[in-house]
Amino acid sequence: MEKNILKIGIIGLGVVGTGVVKTLFGFDNIEIKKIAVRNINKKRGVDFKNLTTDPFEIANDPEIDVVVEVAGGIDPCLEVFKTAIKNKKHIVTANKELLAKHGDEIFSLANENNVTVLYEAAVAGGIPIIGPIKTTLRGNSFNKVMGILNGTTNYILTKMEEDGLSYEECLKQAQALGYAEADPTNDVEGFDTMFKIAILANIVFRKKIDYTKIYREGISKITSTDIRFADELGYKIKLLGLAQKTNEGSLDIRVHPVLVSASSTISKINNATNTVLLEGYPVGSVMFTGPGAGEAPTASSVVGDILAIASEISYTDTILPSSRVRNYENAVQEDILSTKNSYYIAINAQNAIGVIGAIGSICAKNNINLQSIIQKGIKEDNTAFIVVITESAFEADIQNTIKELKAKNINVTSLIRVI
Amino acid sequence: MEKNILKIGIIGLGVVGTGVVKTLFGFDNIEIKKIAVRNINKKRGVDFKNLTTDPFEIANDPEIDVVVEVAGGIDPCLEVFKTAIKNKKHIVTANKELLAKHGDEIFSLANENNVTVLYEAAVAGGIPIIGPIKTTLRGNSFNKVMGILNGTTNYILTKMEEDGLSYEECLKQAQALGYAEADPTNDVEGFDTMFKIAILANIVFRKKIDYTKIYREGISKITSTDIRFADELGYKIKLLGLAQKTNEGSLDIRVHPVLVSASSTISKINNATNTVLLEGYPVGSVMFTGPGAGEAPTASSVVGDILAIASEISYTDTILPSSRVRNYENAVQEDILSTKNSYYIAINAQNAIGVIGAIGSICAKNNINLQSIIQKGIKEDNTAFIVVITESAFEADIQNTIKELKAKNINVTSLIRVI
Repeated sequence: MEKNILKIGIIGLGVVGTGVVKTLFGFDNIEIKKIAVRNINKKRGVDFKNLTTDPFEIANDPEIDVVVEVAGGIDPCLEVFKTAIKNKKHIVTANKELLAKHGDEIFSLANENNVTVLYEAAVAGGIPIIGPIKTTLRGNSFNKVMGILNGTTNYILTKMEEDGLSYEECLKQAQALGYAEADPTNDVEGFDTMFKIAILANIVFRKKIDYTKIYREGISKITSTDIRFADELGYKIKLLGLAQKTNEGSLDIRVHPVLVSASSTISKINNATNTVLLEGYPVGSVMFTGPGAGEAPTASSVVGDILAIASEISYTDTILPSSRVRNYENAVQEDILSTKNSYYIAINAQNAIGVIGAIGSICAKNNINLQSIIQKGIKEDNTAFIVVITESAFEADIQNTIKELKAKNINVTSLIRVI
Repeated sequence: MEKNILKIGIIGLGVVGTGVVKTLFGFDNIEIKKIAVRNINKKRGVDFKNLTTDPFEIANDPEIDVVVEVAGGIDPCLEVFKTAIKNKKHIVTANKELLAKHGDEIFSLANENNVTVLYEAAVAGGIPIIGPIKTTLRGNSFNKVMGILNGTTNYILTKMEEDGLSYEECLKQAQALGYAEADPTNDVEGFDTMFKIAILANIVFRKKIDYTKIYREGISKITSTDIRFADELGYKIKLLGLAQKTNEGSLDIRVHPVLVSASSTISKINNATNTVLLEGYPVGSVMFTGPGAGEAPTASSVVGDILAIASEISYTDTILPSSRVRNYENAVQEDILSTKNSYYIAINAQNAIGVIGAIGSICAKNNINLQSIIQKGIKEDNTAFIVVITESAFEADIQNTIKELKAKNINVTSLIRVI
């Protein structure tokens, strides 16, 4: 780095990349040397001439100090990162999927080469969360991190709640507004939240996380009936990423819809807003709320990381040990079957007569105590719709219960955990 | 600093000091060399032998790298800091009053001596806020910072709301629980919030703030009637510290009770919880919520600052320029009279006949449009209690209106700004 000007190359000039370029125009200690894009001739929101279609040009450019990646996807980013790191370049990235899947490899290589990898933008967009965990909150030992980490699903759930519409109708609205993609799987089935909670758990608990062991369930099976009954029972439904330490020191990490009390602060986080809640000692419980995506908010986090690197290497010509990424031991990860939760269970019984009695005895046999039960009449076709909230029970016992109920033609149509 | 052990001296071993000592026992790169206390023989929650009653012993000890101050008050802290800084020691402090009143002097001296002053714990206890503003959010230009910055007053307002009790009864409860001091003036009259918003505005807007120019009003005049009418109109009452940039670039900084919409997230922050809301570009709006005081949460922030210094000086033997405190230009601060707000006005009229008409014409004459008006009957003594919410109006016009109403025996018993 010469004359205190940090030279960066950017990979990706979509929504976030454009935001980053616009914001960096305000900082005279940062020079954007080159930007890699898919299509050079596309019309863009910023005027920048030095484009390339080859991201390896950036990874191999000896003048570039930092590679900023806001393109997404594994290929070619993983190979580009490896090349760049071997060339002693620092990395700033918003790529949650790449970090969740290949973080270990990338971080090890970065340590070997004395460079850092910063990724504030990979989780919860503009909300400062990785920085505070690594710095201001460093004196803490955490037992839980959880949050609403995906704006698309939170928007859909908010609309279902507010307008009484079905999942499908709200998804269409979200797609029309650009909140959801044409193929919404990554968001609505919880993959995006899974990558983010894997990244958060890694930093919060200082363990390597195997993302393939994270239990994952999306929101596509949530019905407007579930939303209505939850409301009646004093709950809202949110898709949460959750990672918590068990008494044995293992980690219980999962992504699924949750019934949260309507009086809790987390239940008020609506639309595309994200929130992250941390519990630890000595700090207690802290919550960070803000925009989880979008050009400008994500650019805020990317630029914060770039400025952090500029500030360290302008003075020491390298990155402080405290700013480097860490490689931790593997976490012991709990299986969902061994976790304990309360459950919301919606039941559609073919033959209404005696169904409450059957539910009661099957639950009791499986060590499940019921906390609330709602049945509103019997339908003309002699079926009944019943909603049950259980006390805390083992997931394995709940799964057995569902099987035994099914054998008696009592079908569980929704199973949602309650916290 | 030798062998990568940071040596610190602590001033104050009360609630927060005890929390800091307990937390630091978990870190083998930090050695507590000495602690200054008022009374050496007092029984304490931690076992630490090397006590002194003279804080200057710490400021002058050549082996101490960092002076950690958690005692509070101006005297002797200001002189102790100046001595310590001249002796090239870094400072970590939770002293909001000292920083709001003498920050300039302390920061200038720290810059001259190449040391840093960190104070995450001075604002909003355990909530990471100063760190994120200075680091992760550094690429932003902010236009507003506001928050619930005092747990005592938020606790009292929450109890008034929930239990329908008077201010005096809730204050007594808060005192009995240890949330309020025997002389509660510093909290309930808004001084504590004023110091904190002065510190936040300094960092957020990068300007020197004159705390004596901050408009300040506490909660001691809020009545249970105000709480009830606010509720009926869809609002909660909160004591806020607020600093915002005007269109002319000056700063509008103030502390006073505010009617906030009952549907806003800030209205749900109850009891002793604090929250800080930031608005800027590119990040948008972010909110940080958590415990604003207490042994453990405050210790979390103090320890975070100590570890930050340990990490920098273990490697570079000094503090990075980016971590140093800054001295900025003086802010231009707005007078409350030139600000625009909506207002909640409670009126007690001696003679009820024709009072609505009089209010209407006096308001109109002063350019004040009414948004809502509630009068519920006329009392037996021919007085009326009326509540008005205005549209946005100049404070100067509102103050004139109050004088003119008073001249007609129409008394304004409460005036609360609405945001």
